[in-house]
Amino acid sequence: MGNLAAVMTRPGAIEIRERPDPVPAPGQAVIAPRAVGVCGSDVSYFLDGRVGPFVVDGDFVLGHEVSADVVAVGEGVTNVQVGDRVAVEPSVPDRDCEQCRAGRYHLCPRLEFLATPPVDGALIQRLAIDARTLFVMPDSMSYEAGALLEPLSVGLWGCRRAALVPGDRVLVTGAGPVGLLAAEAARAEGALSVTMSDVSTERLALASRHGFETSTSEELSGQGQGYDVLLECSGAPGVLRQGLERLRQGGRAASIGIGKHDVDLPLHTLNWNEITLATVNRYKDTWPLAMALVASGRVSLDGLHTHSFPLARTADALQVGRTDPTAVKSIIYPQEV
Amino acid sequence: MGNLAAVMTRPGAIEIRERPDPVPAPGQAVIAPRAVGVCGSDVSYFLDGRVGPFVVDGDFVLGHEVSADVVAVGEGVTNVQVGDRVAVEPSVPDRDCEQCRAGRYHLCPRLEFLATPPVDGALIQRLAIDARTLFVMPDSMSYEAGALLEPLSVGLWGCRRAALVPGDRVLVTGAGPVGLLAAEAARAEGALSVTMSDVSTERLALASRHGFETSTSEELSGQGQGYDVLLECSGAPGVLRQGLERLRQGGRAASIGIGKHDVDLPLHTLNWNEITLATVNRYKDTWPLAMALVASGRVSLDGLHTHSFPLARTADALQVGRTDPTAVKSIIYPQEV
Amino acid sequence: MGNLAAVMTRPGAIEIRERPDPVPAPGQAVIAPRAVGVCGSDVSYFLDGRVGPFVVDGDFVLGHEVSADVVAVGEGVTNVQVGDRVAVEPSVPDRDCEQCRAGRYHLCPRLEFLATPPVDGALIQRLAIDARTLFVMPDSMSYEAGALLEPLSVGLWGCRRAALVPGDRVLVTGAGPVGLLAAEAARAEGALSVTMSDVSTERLALASRHGFETSTSEELSGQGQGYDVLLECSGAPGVLRQGLERLRQGGRAASIGIGKHDVDLPLHTLNWNEITLATVNRYKDTWPLAMALVASGRVSLDGLHTHSFPLARTADALQVGRTDPTAVKSIIYPQEV
Amino acid sequence: MGNLAAVMTRPGAIEIRERPDPVPAPGQAVIAPRAVGVCGSDVSYFLDGRVGPFVVDGDFVLGHEVSADVVAVGEGVTNVQVGDRVAVEPSVPDRDCEQCRAGRYHLCPRLEFLATPPVDGALIQRLAIDARTLFVMPDSMSYEAGALLEPLSVGLWGCRRAALVPGDRVLVTGAGPVGLLAAEAARAEGALSVTMSDVSTERLALASRHGFETSTSEELSGQGQGYDVLLECSGAPGVLRQGLERLRQGGRAASIGIGKHDVDLPLHTLNWNEITLATVNRYKDTWPLAMALVASGRVSLDGLHTHSFPLARTADALQVGRTDPTAVKSIIYPQEV
Repeated sequence: MGNLAAVMTRPGAIEIRERPDPVPAPGQAVIAPRAVGVCGSDVSYFLDGRVGPFVVDGDFVLGHEVSADVVAVGEGVTNVQVGDRVAVEPSVPDRDCEQCRAGRYHLCPRLEFLATPPVDGALIQRLAIDARTLFVMPDSMSYEAGALLEPLSVGLWGCRRAALVPGDRVLVTGAGPVGLLAAEAARAEGALSVTMSDVSTERLALASRHGFETSTSEELSGQGQGYDVLLECSGAPGVLRQGLERLRQGGRAASIGIGKHDVDLPLHTLNWNEITLATVNRYKDTWPLAMALVASGRVSLDGLHTHSFPLARTADALQVGRTDPTAVKSIIYPQEV
Repeated sequence: MGNLAAVMTRPGAIEIRERPDPVPAPGQAVIAPRAVGVCGSDVSYFLDGRVGPFVVDGDFVLGHEVSADVVAVGEGVTNVQVGDRVAVEPSVPDRDCEQCRAGRYHLCPRLEFLATPPVDGALIQRLAIDARTLFVMPDSMSYEAGALLEPLSVGLWGCRRAALVPGDRVLVTGAGPVGLLAAEAARAEGALSVTMSDVSTERLALASRHGFETSTSEELSGQGQGYDVLLECSGAPGVLRQGLERLRQGGRAASIGIGKHDVDLPLHTLNWNEITLATVNRYKDTWPLAMALVASGRVSLDGLHTHSFPLARTADALQVGRTDPTAVKSIIYPQEV
Repeated sequence: MGNLAAVMTRPGAIEIRERPDPVPAPGQAVIAPRAVGVCGSDVSYFLDGRVGPFVVDGDFVLGHEVSADVVAVGEGVTNVQVGDRVAVEPSVPDRDCEQCRAGRYHLCPRLEFLATPPVDGALIQRLAIDARTLFVMPDSMSYEAGALLEPLSVGLWGCRRAALVPGDRVLVTGAGPVGLLAAEAARAEGALSVTMSDVSTERLALASRHGFETSTSEELSGQGQGYDVLLECSGAPGVLRQGLERLRQGGRAASIGIGKHDVDLPLHTLNWNEITLATVNRYKDTWPLAMALVASGRVSLDGLHTHSFPLARTADALQVGRTDPTAVKSIIYPQEV
Repeated sequence: MGNLAAVMTRPGAIEIRERPDPVPAPGQAVIAPRAVGVCGSDVSYFLDGRVGPFVVDGDFVLGHEVSADVVAVGEGVTNVQVGDRVAVEPSVPDRDCEQCRAGRYHLCPRLEFLATPPVDGALIQRLAIDARTLFVMPDSMSYEAGALLEPLSVGLWGCRRAALVPGDRVLVTGAGPVGLLAAEAARAEGALSVTMSDVSTERLALASRHGFETSTSEELSGQGQGYDVLLECSGAPGVLRQGLERLRQGGRAASIGIGKHDVDLPLHTLNWNEITLATVNRYKDTWPLAMALVASGRVSLDGLHTHSFPLARTADALQVGRTDPTAVKSIIYPQEV
């Protein structure tokens, strides 16, 4: 009974390979991933072999949206025990650099992040990881929900970066999984109103079922300056600009979706309206909050998980979003082969 | 058909008197109050003739938790029209002083506040007021809910003053109306958890029905330092100190309930834990948020409104809380005599 | 003895004309401008007839960097009296809109700003203005220094917008008057270090005389990510991008200099470094601070005032910066014709 | 040639003893303390054997205001080398707990702090310490100035805790070393004005020589509410209350001086004025800033160092402040016996 992994051997190719069984170092736990969500960055690594400056070189394992069972714990681990069902924060900082010392461990230059080269991800049956990244789930929380705490964390941190305060009128551009969860995060943090825009009517319909106001991209262009906060989650060309122009004077924006290209911004208008644009690199310290919001029903995950795959069908999971317009979030089950 | 008011003629005495019919000045509206909640400060004015430095001198009208119908509008009013159902923010700043200029209009030294001497309150059938204090309610919102936006505003502003951020573990001491609504506010702004403590088992039972953790005062004393934020809403002697000692290092507190006496604080312990204590004077800019939170169900008002009175029974409304332990919030209906 | 003004009758043309003598309305004072600095926006209006969306239509008076004598006061004015020497904040908000109420009066949509069409500026001998914009100068402060409080205010507000905190390592791009005063502001607010870059060796030499580190633009390109804060004051194409790329992870930038064109930004890099970019629209509430910093010597104005002109030579004052590389700040004396 | 230490063997008794020569562990440096300032807490330990909950049990070495020479470095140390002249931040956090992770390493429950039981201090000739606590001084900085960076750090962090912003009118109560340096810190961070009050005319005279406004305690009682920020540095009974009552509405206070007793506060008044009271536990991340402010002359240390002692006269150094009213800061030179 080996430790099987979905290994990307080159762009576009995944093979199931056996890997050595991990042993927990002091402070580590070994986890058995139970549900792993597919993220856009996984898809980019799979198709292009790179995301920005991060290039896949040799065999590589994807997957960083993870829930799991704890199957072993190393010396000194006290926060989890064998048998715990956990959600996984996929980042391990050095806890020692200037950024960590300033409370910004997510910007640690030596951060190890699952499925960011050269660190392998969680599409494997057993994995050793710093136990401090593990958060015990309540019994009522599904493994699928546990995995979705990762994109929810992106939304929560985006709200923080936008300096969202209760009472803000929020525009979320891009109604994919991150956008929907950013909208849920904004509502759960006291947004006065949340409007979502997208080019996809399927996605706007889902947004509407979540209780958000919706606006097609064309409708958005025709609106005045009505929002206090923009959460840009599409990464599509021109959308950041379009959203910024819908902000009131003094408005704040977080750029969450990361496109591949430079952006062209109307600086004169932004200055006149005194807009603040905060960029976003993942998250920090969001798992307990994400878990509490989902467990209490303040954040709804309804309709997000649309497709399921066993480990052996990882390549299909990575590609379904390109062909099936109903796909929102695919989840891979590493213990099923 | 006169304009009847419940007039406090001396401490302990209320008479129904006819007052002149108001005419709206430019920028004002005339409102017909439909529901007026009884606040602890109303009770103090009624019983003691004063609250802190504010002394009732001569006839005085109580009531500042108000929803109403708009019955006339003055020149230049555009935000409301006759027939609108409105919630009322009971404060009119001068909009011109250093405090207003700094965005702190609630601290304006020339603030006119309903039912704070010498300004009369809303236990009257028709009242002229700056139209900018009026916020149109959705059709689905009851007059009772509209009146409760005032104590909810206290809770919302208390959270702001405590610098509450999503993810905070919150302790609310005092489970009366303000405490319950502060707890609701904290949850609606993303608190990780909310625990309420009180000496009254009835009030803790209500807190529990609202989904909050509860703790008797004795239990609270036995707890360690588990909270990030304290919202002190009891005003009772010793409770602020007790709550402060339950905060983790770096914790933040808002003192919302205002007792009559000085407080004795363990400064050495507070310094060691580097606690921040923010005091609270009412609220600012909270009505749109309060209305959105109630309208969307993110804040529940269930079980708060316990007793109803016509205008002529104002004195009973002011005293029911002292004799009936089930009383939470009494509402007076000025149009019913 | 008339009230002479330097009137721009069309782009490129200034005529001295007589204007009616102003009478102070209640709350206003009449001032006699004594020193008026020339700003880049004055030059743009003079040459192009516009700045962004603001178009000069008909006769127009320039000048918004102003010190003056008070020569008359209207009813109700208490903060100044006839004979006071004052520095002038050139903006009058409506004090009543949502922006003013939020404490952001500088973003008031009905803001009246000297020398922004259609409001005339201060290149005139007597001018009525809201007395609340006037700040009495200490005897030791020159009229020239009083006029320079305006560009210093831009620097101070830029620091605020960049969320500068004591201990930040600051890069100021652009060593013109605004850049130099932004650098002075940063130092006076506790910057750990201040480095200035520019393409002009004359300007870098002045920066060096002010005690700042200097870096040519080429040297800057070769540096690593060493700064916590960027204050972009050049408005020149590509400089904002260059400066942003020199920020450490978690860095903050204020875009103070306003170019005419869109900017092209490397969003992927900004996200990775989690940079915050705040844009800047003038200032608010800075005059008392600017005055105190100059009066106490914490901000030095040495070498800034390079050229002097009587009112009749306004056109020369507006053009000297284009031909004389030693020009930093030209000052016009409206009482001298 | 031994490693001599001034060892407190019981309250009131200091003996010079030889200690083993330290060897640097990986990440540590061995330093030879050159100047050690005497702090009020040293005096309390010496006289009372305790400060708050910290009790001296057995032999104990005082001293935490330290500059030194580096005499050896352990494996992996890169920030200092043998021969460097350094200022010492006397705190070593675990870098791993929830407080450290949140960027509040100074509140780390496992913080090791020089001269806080059971950790010995720096009144010794050679000492091993985490090298990350060492900051290389510029050649121009004296050892005495290096030691004074510690109390300056207290002032700097007090300003941060008070949320001081440029333009604030600041009141500093208590004109001892910490108060003077808090005042210097406030001025260096852009305070509009700084007023100091004390009961000692000698100390007010020193404050005046530093360019601060001064006020006796009696004069202070007669003033109105004129300050935005209070920095309470006296720790004397009643002074915090007196200072809080001088704050404007919306004012902020930091309680820096730590008295032994509880404080009695006028909560009703504080609520009405909506005051924020932040307590202070030492500092974090202040050494580079403190060093830059002193090196650039933005903070003056003139007149602070009044008395000098060799190691053998440590007991005298600890007591001179009680008998000599001209004493401000005593410095002990551990390499002089």
